[in-house]
Amino acid sequence: MTQWRDAIAAAADRISGHARVTPAGSVTIDGAEVQIKFEQMQHTGSFKVRGAFNSLLSLPIPDAGVVAASGGNHGAAVAHAAASLGIPAHIFVPEMAGPSKIALIERTGATLHVVPGAYADALAAARAHEAETGAAQIHAYDAEATVAGQGTLMREWEAQGLDADTVLIGVGGGGLVGGALAWTGRTRKIVAVEPALSCCLHSALSAGEPVDVEVSGVAANSLGAKRVGQICFDLARDLGTSVTLVRDDAITQAQLWAWQELRQMLEPGGAAALAALLSGAYAPQPGEKVAVLLCGGNVAPDPMTAGTSG
Amino acid sequence: MTQWRDAIAAAADRISGHARVTPAGSVTIDGAEVQIKFEQMQHTGSFKVRGAFNSLLSLPIPDAGVVAASGGNHGAAVAHAAASLGIPAHIFVPEMAGPSKIALIERTGATLHVVPGAYADALAAARAHEAETGAAQIHAYDAEATVAGQGTLMREWEAQGLDADTVLIGVGGGGLVGGALAWTGRTRKIVAVEPALSCCLHSALSAGEPVDVEVSGVAANSLGAKRVGQICFDLARDLGTSVTLVRDDAITQAQLWAWQELRQMLEPGGAAALAALLSGAYAPQPGEKVAVLLCGGNVAPDPMTAGTSG
Repeated sequence: MTQWRDAIAAAADRISGHARVTPAGSVTIDGAEVQIKFEQMQHTGSFKVRGAFNSLLSLPIPDAGVVAASGGNHGAAVAHAAASLGIPAHIFVPEMAGPSKIALIERTGATLHVVPGAYADALAAARAHEAETGAAQIHAYDAEATVAGQGTLMREWEAQGLDADTVLIGVGGGGLVGGALAWTGRTRKIVAVEPALSCCLHSALSAGEPVDVEVSGVAANSLGAKRVGQICFDLARDLGTSVTLVRDDAITQAQLWAWQELRQMLEPGGAAALAALLSGAYAPQPGEKVAVLLCGGNVAPDPMTAGTSG
Repeated sequence: MTQWRDAIAAAADRISGHARVTPAGSVTIDGAEVQIKFEQMQHTGSFKVRGAFNSLLSLPIPDAGVVAASGGNHGAAVAHAAASLGIPAHIFVPEMAGPSKIALIERTGATLHVVPGAYADALAAARAHEAETGAAQIHAYDAEATVAGQGTLMREWEAQGLDADTVLIGVGGGGLVGGALAWTGRTRKIVAVEPALSCCLHSALSAGEPVDVEVSGVAANSLGAKRVGQICFDLARDLGTSVTLVRDDAITQAQLWAWQELRQMLEPGGAAALAALLSGAYAPQPGEKVAVLLCGGNVAPDPMTAGTSG
C-alpha cells in the first residue's frame, strides 16, 4: 500500500487550493457520537472534483483538452476542473439528464453539448469528438489518477481528527471507496455501502471478478455503475472489505433525516452510507466508533429554481 | 466583560451534550480565505437552541413548564429544548406561520397549539395560558440567560480555530450578536449585519436608545424584531459596534450562492451576514481576515415536502 499512500499524498499536494477542504464534524445518533464529513460541500457538489483535478494536473493533456460524456457528478467535476485550469473541455450531456444537472455543468464555463436521447447517445457523440480532435477522455473511477485523487478525502479527514474504527462509504463504480481503501489499508475498517438495486461491488466479490449487473432504483443516477472498477475490486478483495446493502426506502428516509436533523440536502447516492447506519443495515458493535461520509448533494430538481428560499 | 465571559463559560458547560457542536470550515471567496461556521446544522435549524437550553437549565421552571408564542426559530428551539429535557412546553403558533414551521415544532414533541390568525392572536393565547397555569415565558433575545447561551457559539468557534480579524453576524433582536459581543469584547471586530428593511439595531444606535422600527422584507420572519434588546444595545454602544445594512436582493443572491457553491440551504435571515460580504456592503481591508456566521436554515416551503430529493 506504500505506493498508493505516496500517490495519494502527491495528489493531495497537487489539488491543494483547487479542491476544497470540506468541513468535518460529529453528530450524536442514538446516543453514540458519529463523525461525519460533509463532502457534498465540495465544488460542484460531490467528491468527484478531487479525482478530476488530480487527473488534469498529472496526466498528459493534449491541446484539444478533455472530453467527458456524463450528465452527472463526474461530468460536472471534469467541467469545473478544466474550466478553472484553463483547459478546453467538451462535456456531452444526454438531454434526459434534466435541467438541474445541465445548468450545473453550464455554470462551470465548459463547452456543453446537450445530445438528444440517453447516455449512450452522449457517449457516442463524445467518442466522435475524441476521435476527431484527439481530446483526452477522463475516466470516472477506474484509473489510478482518479482513485488517488479520491483517496485524498480520507487523508484530509484524518488530518481533521477522524478517529473512528469504521467508516461507511457509498459505492458507485468504486473510485471513492477505492481511494479510501488505498489510503487506509488495514488501519481502519471501511464498509462499502451499495444500494441493493445497484451493487456492482457486492456482485463482483461474490463472483470473484467484476461482472456486469443490472442497475435501477433511486440512487442509480449516481451509484448505478454497471461494473465495478478493477482497481477498487482488487483492493476490496485483498483487504476483505465488507459490503452492506441498503434498500431504496432506507436511502429516502436518510435523505429526509439529513434535512430534518442537519439541514443538509443529499442526493440519494450521497445519503446511502448514512442510510446504512440509520436503517440498521450496518449495526455497529457496542463501543465501535463509526464515521459516515456524505458525498453528494446534487438533488433534483434544484431546490432554488424550484422556488424554495423564503 | 469578565462577568459575561464567566456566564458564557458556565452556559457552555450547561448546554454541552444538548446543543450540537456545529461544523466550522473555510471557503475561498474572491481569492481570500473566509472562515464559516455552519450553525444552521444546529438542532431545529438555528442557533436559538443554545439560548433555549441555557434558559431552561438555569432559570427556575415552574411545574407548569414553559410557554412560547412563535411560529419561528425561537418557538422551535424552546419546543425542542423543553421536550428533550422533559419539561412541559406549550407553543402557540399562528396559523399563518405555514405548514413547514408548524411541522418543525410538531416534530419536537412539544404541545402545539395552532391559533387561527396572526402572531398577535398566538401571543394573546400564550399569555392566557401563562396566566392560567403559571408557565414561564422564555424571552427570545433580551434576557441574560438567552444572550449567554448564544454567546457559547463564538466561544465554540474560537476553540475550533477561528482566527479572523472580523466576524460578520446577522441581527434580529440582538441575542446572537449580543452574545458574540459579550464573549469577544474588544478582542475581535464584530460586524452586525441587518437587512435595510429590518434594522432595529442600526436605528437604535442612531437614536441613542432602542426605538420601535417598521419591519418588512425577505428576512422579516426571522430578523424582523420591532425593537432591539437592551442588552445587545448596551453592548453594541459601549463597544462601538459597526452595523452594515444589506438589501433584500443581496440576501436572495447570497441564498442562491450558498446553494450553488456550498449546497447549503439558508433562510434569508441565515444568509444576511454572507450577503454583506458577497455584495460588497461590507468590504474588508486588504489583508483583513473575515469570518461569516451562517445561522439559520429553515427555508420555506420545506424542500423535502416540496418534492426535491431524487
